[in-house]
Amino acid sequence: MSSIRDIALKAGVGIGTVSRALNGTGYIAEDTKKKILNAARELDYKPNDPVRSLYRNRSAIVGIVVPDIEHPFFTGLLKHVEQELFQYGYRCMVCDITGKERRELEFLEMLQQDVMDGLIICVDPLAGVDIESIRKPLVCIERKWSENIPLIHSNHIKGGELAAGLLKDAGCRRVLQFAPVGAEKDPFMNRHSTFRRIMEESGIEVLQANILSNRMGYEYDGQYVKQFSDLIEKADGIFAPDLVAAGCLKEAVEHGRKVPEELKIVTYDAMPLTRLVNPTLTGVAQDVLRLARVAVDTIMKIINGNSSVDCDLTIDVSFQKGGTV
Amino acid sequence: MSSIRDIALKAGVGIGTVSRALNGTGYIAEDTKKKILNAARELDYKPNDPVRSLYRNRSAIVGIVVPDIEHPFFTGLLKHVEQELFQYGYRCMVCDITGKERRELEFLEMLQQDVMDGLIICVDPLAGVDIESIRKPLVCIERKWSENIPLIHSNHIKGGELAAGLLKDAGCRRVLQFAPVGAEKDPFMNRHSTFRRIMEESGIEVLQANILSNRMGYEYDGQYVKQFSDLIEKADGIFAPDLVAAGCLKEAVEHGRKVPEELKIVTYDAMPLTRLVNPTLTGVAQDVLRLARVAVDTIMKIINGNSSVDCDLTIDVSFQKGGTV
Repeated sequence: MSSIRDIALKAGVGIGTVSRALNGTGYIAEDTKKKILNAARELDYKPNDPVRSLYRNRSAIVGIVVPDIEHPFFTGLLKHVEQELFQYGYRCMVCDITGKERRELEFLEMLQQDVMDGLIICVDPLAGVDIESIRKPLVCIERKWSENIPLIHSNHIKGGELAAGLLKDAGCRRVLQFAPVGAEKDPFMNRHSTFRRIMEESGIEVLQANILSNRMGYEYDGQYVKQFSDLIEKADGIFAPDLVAAGCLKEAVEHGRKVPEELKIVTYDAMPLTRLVNPTLTGVAQDVLRLARVAVDTIMKIINGNSSVDCDLTIDVSFQKGGTV
Repeated sequence: MSSIRDIALKAGVGIGTVSRALNGTGYIAEDTKKKILNAARELDYKPNDPVRSLYRNRSAIVGIVVPDIEHPFFTGLLKHVEQELFQYGYRCMVCDITGKERRELEFLEMLQQDVMDGLIICVDPLAGVDIESIRKPLVCIERKWSENIPLIHSNHIKGGELAAGLLKDAGCRRVLQFAPVGAEKDPFMNRHSTFRRIMEESGIEVLQANILSNRMGYEYDGQYVKQFSDLIEKADGIFAPDLVAAGCLKEAVEHGRKVPEELKIVTYDAMPLTRLVNPTLTGVAQDVLRLARVAVDTIMKIINGNSSVDCDLTIDVSFQKGGTV
């Protein structure tokens, strides 16, 4: 039995477009509509297919809660989540919690009221919220709310090993590590513990610069990094998230230090902006497209009643060649 | 007569929170709820206030259509639009049209079906769409769809003057201008025509590099800019959008040119990433927060039935001091 997905594939259009054409609701170019109806006929599509009825009584909306839309990692994640949802004929409601106390709750409430069919959470767990009691489609990216909610995250152990290996092999003796305090349960912290362990095992001194885990976005520019300028001066290697790494590069070069000769920098996430600075930042790249895709595939499975969903999904990281190591 | 806005102000919370507290729907901390109910009592709030009833039969959702979430200008715009909508107790549905042919139509259709109460459009007009016939709350930012739809845009004439003045006063004799082809009706094109006019009046040669107006985001990195490397080599001044400007800076420095001594660069938009590169890009800053705020205020007026809305709203631009001029 054919589905609207088969029709979409055959006609070369999105599922949403097929759904609109079959429901006869407006705003489809005539030739596109004809193509879809032809594909439906050829595939002997029956309008009461279970796949089609699945879309009844649904909002066809999935929400995503992020700490800061403007933080490059979450910008990329939001972009890809929106695109992947579109493949399923779903739309994306966005919630940026910056400066809004406990705004996540509003989205959890909307989920319970069926304003949306599912929610993708990318922010720290909220004290006092019994997430298990919500019993609606939920998926987490990089933040662990509960054992029973699927968690999609990068392989940060490999990431930490890659980063440590780069600075170790380059002969660094005293490295500065920017890491958030708290959030120990979250998978992304593995990069920091792994990095530190390897450094210590190799007899390399580790200087620590604490960053607040809710401090995101471009405040990590030159101004923010300046408070650590003494530590940057002392180090011959730096391990930092993208915006901090770019800020450190700028700060160091302004103080006359040669990168990578005198100071090596390894960035983490390696979002596109790290290829715009000069030199390009060497680092560990997260596969943001894949994180988004697996998160959306997983929440769609749950929405469609599939109960056999893996609760811990690890996405590979990779090496970004650059000019700072 | 007091409104939920007065209560929100008095209790120091958002309108959405007040609405939830008064409707008795879950997920509000007990002390917050108490604070809101006390404020409502003190202000002698009547639950059948017209302001409150306004929120009935509404989706409390406004959509925004952008060319590319990851383009820094639209990332900033989306962030602020979402935040401003939140002040009104509204949520934000996002539509990124990258790679999705005529996807705007889906959002226009949802608007007609009252899935959302209004739509903010930041993409080029679509051929064959009779936008006037839609008769729902619509606002455009930087893209002109019709005389009768409010258009919020920066003062690009002033922006073009500022940019031209910077390169002229610095003594440039041959400048390279990156400008999109087409889109002549859109207000942002005024920066380019103004810039060119002043250059020509001053006897300064203008080299043109055409950029496609639908080409957005980080493809404008080193790889993209490289195809213009001959033109960059010939110029002593560059006027370009943020990502292109950052790419030009990188390309020029890699070819051993001194910035700003041998080559001056003026960026446009001046989003935060332009302060992370070294040196910081000198340029013209758009007031993205203000663009977002005026767009949201305007669409909320229309949603609330206020017909006296200005159809052309100009937002000031400003000078960003940097190290490239």
